Amino acid sequence: MKAKTPKESLTIETKIVLPNDTNTLGNLFGGQLLAWMDEIASISAHRHCRRVVVTASVNNVSFKNPINHADIIILEAKVTRAFNSSMEVWVDVYVEHHVTGKRKKSNEAIYNFVAVDQNGGPITVPAIQPETEEEKLRFEGALRRKQLSLILAGKMKPEEATELKAIFDIVD
Amino acid sequence: MKAKTPKESLTIETKIVLPNDTNTLGNLFGGQLLAWMDEIASISAHRHCRRVVVTASVNNVSFKNPINHADIIILEAKVTRAFNSSMEVWVDVYVEHHVTGKRKKSNEAIYNFVAVDQNGGPITVPAIQPETEEEKLRFEGALRRKQLSLILAGKMKPEEATELKAIFDIVD
Amino acid sequence: MKAKTPKESLTIETKIVLPNDTNTLGNLFGGQLLAWMDEIASISAHRHCRRVVVTASVNNVSFKNPINHADIIILEAKVTRAFNSSMEVWVDVYVEHHVTGKRKKSNEAIYNFVAVDQNGGPITVPAIQPETEEEKLRFEGALRRKQLSLILAGKMKPEEATELKAIFDIVD
Amino acid sequence: MKAKTPKESLTIETKIVLPNDTNTLGNLFGGQLLAWMDEIASISAHRHCRRVVVTASVNNVSFKNPINHADIIILEAKVTRAFNSSMEVWVDVYVEHHVTGKRKKSNEAIYNFVAVDQNGGPITVPAIQPETEEEKLRFEGALRRKQLSLILAGKMKPEEATELKAIFDIVD
Amino acid sequence: MKAKTPKESLTIETKIVLPNDTNTLGNLFGGQLLAWMDEIASISAHRHCRRVVVTASVNNVSFKNPINHADIIILEAKVTRAFNSSMEVWVDVYVEHHVTGKRKKSNEAIYNFVAVDQNGGPITVPAIQPETEEEKLRFEGALRRKQLSLILAGKMKPEEATELKAIFDIVD
Amino acid sequence: MKAKTPKESLTIETKIVLPNDTNTLGNLFGGQLLAWMDEIASISAHRHCRRVVVTASVNNVSFKNPINHADIIILEAKVTRAFNSSMEVWVDVYVEHHVTGKRKKSNEAIYNFVAVDQNGGPITVPAIQPETEEEKLRFEGALRRKQLSLILAGKMKPEEATELKAIFDIVD
Repeated sequence: MKAKTPKESLTIETKIVLPNDTNTLGNLFGGQLLAWMDEIASISAHRHCRRVVVTASVNNVSFKNPINHADIIILEAKVTRAFNSSMEVWVDVYVEHHVTGKRKKSNEAIYNFVAVDQNGGPITVPAIQPETEEEKLRFEGALRRKQLSLILAGKMKPEEATELKAIFDIVD
Repeated sequence: MKAKTPKESLTIETKIVLPNDTNTLGNLFGGQLLAWMDEIASISAHRHCRRVVVTASVNNVSFKNPINHADIIILEAKVTRAFNSSMEVWVDVYVEHHVTGKRKKSNEAIYNFVAVDQNGGPITVPAIQPETEEEKLRFEGALRRKQLSLILAGKMKPEEATELKAIFDIVD
Repeated sequence: MKAKTPKESLTIETKIVLPNDTNTLGNLFGGQLLAWMDEIASISAHRHCRRVVVTASVNNVSFKNPINHADIIILEAKVTRAFNSSMEVWVDVYVEHHVTGKRKKSNEAIYNFVAVDQNGGPITVPAIQPETEEEKLRFEGALRRKQLSLILAGKMKPEEATELKAIFDIVD
Repeated sequence: MKAKTPKESLTIETKIVLPNDTNTLGNLFGGQLLAWMDEIASISAHRHCRRVVVTASVNNVSFKNPINHADIIILEAKVTRAFNSSMEVWVDVYVEHHVTGKRKKSNEAIYNFVAVDQNGGPITVPAIQPETEEEKLRFEGALRRKQLSLILAGKMKPEEATELKAIFDIVD
Repeated sequence: MKAKTPKESLTIETKIVLPNDTNTLGNLFGGQLLAWMDEIASISAHRHCRRVVVTASVNNVSFKNPINHADIIILEAKVTRAFNSSMEVWVDVYVEHHVTGKRKKSNEAIYNFVAVDQNGGPITVPAIQPETEEEKLRFEGALRRKQLSLILAGKMKPEEATELKAIFDIVD
Repeated sequence: MKAKTPKESLTIETKIVLPNDTNTLGNLFGGQLLAWMDEIASISAHRHCRRVVVTASVNNVSFKNPINHADIIILEAKVTRAFNSSMEVWVDVYVEHHVTGKRKKSNEAIYNFVAVDQNGGPITVPAIQPETEEEKLRFEGALRRKQLSLILAGKMKPEEATELKAIFDIVD
């Protein structure tokens, strides 16, 4: 199975925040953004493997700056790394300035998907071959994030998490 | 400021999965569940501090078993720990068996909220006093999760993450 | 078939009123509240009988105080009485004060559901054994409400409505 | 203030039941129908008095026959009677046969609205002058329904409900 | 197959513009109006032919005056002409003045539908027999519009568009 | 005011058709697609002029092939030509094959927007400098379409529509 680049799974969605999408402060409702990110991330995962995919987990979503009513936002999703049947997808959310058109990073989210067959069983997906510097950084970090989530789920012993231990500069 | 128990922020939502809520496989659309969890978690955080709260991050959401069309689901949110102006909220999602009424854990999610004043500045919130065994476990884990997220965000040095290092049984 | 208590069918939904839910005055749109009450009441009826249920009628819904944008509301539904295959469900709606957390009754609604088999035919459901004072009052009133609705539908003669006549202190 | 006919407040809505509107049995979700009826009834009440109106109560909604996915339905609302600042509105719901175009009554609902000023205070509305036989029957019944609801709310003594007592053929 | 009048396919929808329906300027979101017009026009086409219909094209929709939040709008759809299996439907949108009740034309839209069998193949529909002056004008214009759309789609040569050429007063 | 290329206003939206978006045949509901196209087209117009824009008209939308439930669709909008304060925007809709990833054109739509100031008055927008062959063709056709719509609206005499007459190979 031939490796694919993150670029091949790039998926873009452009939205304008309508009154329908706001919370009680008049900003974009966090739950609505989570739903949009899930949709775009699942299409990205599907484009990588061309299989039916299901959301396995949402690992990290940060809401740094509120997104306002009437803002134009751009969601971009790319697969950062694949592990057997699972794929890590990053979603970058940008707010576009109305007058200058400049984009400002607003949110990042990490979703995980699994490719499944008709019975819900896992299917192997292609590997990822990162190209840009950012893609390489995210590719490397993906292993640490995976180990961390396996440990937290009790499916891996901490001493086996070689990549994760590197964060702590631990010499065995 | 008097500490509060997790029970005081318990918030419950009961839903039935309608066709409107499903994905292309006929299961509950992940994005819809994320939106419901965000709503219930934000009410829970508000009940803890009685202030305006905004979603700061979604740390971990796992989708273990698909939730089907027509399933009855129960979402329960409680604040697990508070740090100055931020609150960690766990959402437990259960599917209720139609005939027996037995509940089965379907999902867990960890959301973080911040209490803010009129200018969006942070406001101190009450501490949490856990009562049950599960509440105590989640309370203790919250510090490790916070350190981890600070490290990942580059705001804490790994050697300062004393709680997190304990996972790896590291003796300084 | 063993009788059940109203408590066994208690169903709770907690919501925050978003812009999406408001009418042209900026209050909660009545139609939206009716839809939420129908959902929660149908789950309550289902919990009582563990069968498929369909809405038979909405008998009385009063909108005493407007519910405002950003209000936290709690909907609580319980079966008040069962008649063969039909169940009367009360929904109590409360608004929770943002600062004190005190609940104030905002609305009451009475829905009726019928348990049906695969062909839409009626199925007998368990009786109700009320426990609290309020449950007993509602249980007793349910018969009068049923007789009234049968009279209005032309399915019962007024002189047979013994319970209803009691309202008028009529001595036969 | 000149009386108006029910016809002057006739309001029509034609809908087709989309997947988005269905319950778990594939029929029109009762809550959705309640929301549609509330909208059309409020426009009808507004047309009668040309004032801002708010939903006061839903007195009686019966769901006789399920409405199916893809059905064409017609909702017709008319004011049946006015009392000072309140208006009773009937909504008749019909399903239109796809091939013959024949309409079949599917539901009836009775809503009550109040006309309000800027402070939410009640405003007197025009009286109703019924024209057809059905309009006259509904006009007469409206007083009994009003008395009944006042009694149930504890705002009228049963012995004062002269119209209502007539149902029971009671001779004082 | 007997011809039918436009009146036989008249379909009416009355709506009030809720916050949920507005764009970032607080007016009715154009996309929402397009969706409502599509629904009402498709019911009108169905009423003309009593067959399953699918949207073939939207030819012309003009948005002359913005429709505001809280406006009452009336959509009226009628089939203006039929060609074999296709039907042209006009939707007239009016805003009703809150106090006087006077209607003001706000938008016009022209939709085209095709009647299809189970395999999606076209089915012949009845002809239209216009009655009023406006119906006759729209009936005549429909042929020019059809020729124009065939030319634009490259399916008709301009010299064959006899009706359309009449606009330009061209003598062959 | 410097001219801009169509590419500068390119706006992309990627969607998956959920049950919520379907009509009674299980295909994408035409009205939903019209709403999505209006949103993406309005963002494109805004990107061209960086002003508030309002939908002026929808000139032509063809629905060639039905779009199915679960299809991935891509909407791409670009400004094709600007006239003083108005902009013509084309939306191309593609369905992406699930296995091969190949795109197939499904729909085309032409929307017109006007840039407005705070009082709703028109604002001059930059001209368009087409680059590709397709952009040049659409740029040229835009003038004919504009003349045609002015004639149909009675705002231009047919003999003045020089570009449009060229379709009919008319020699003055």
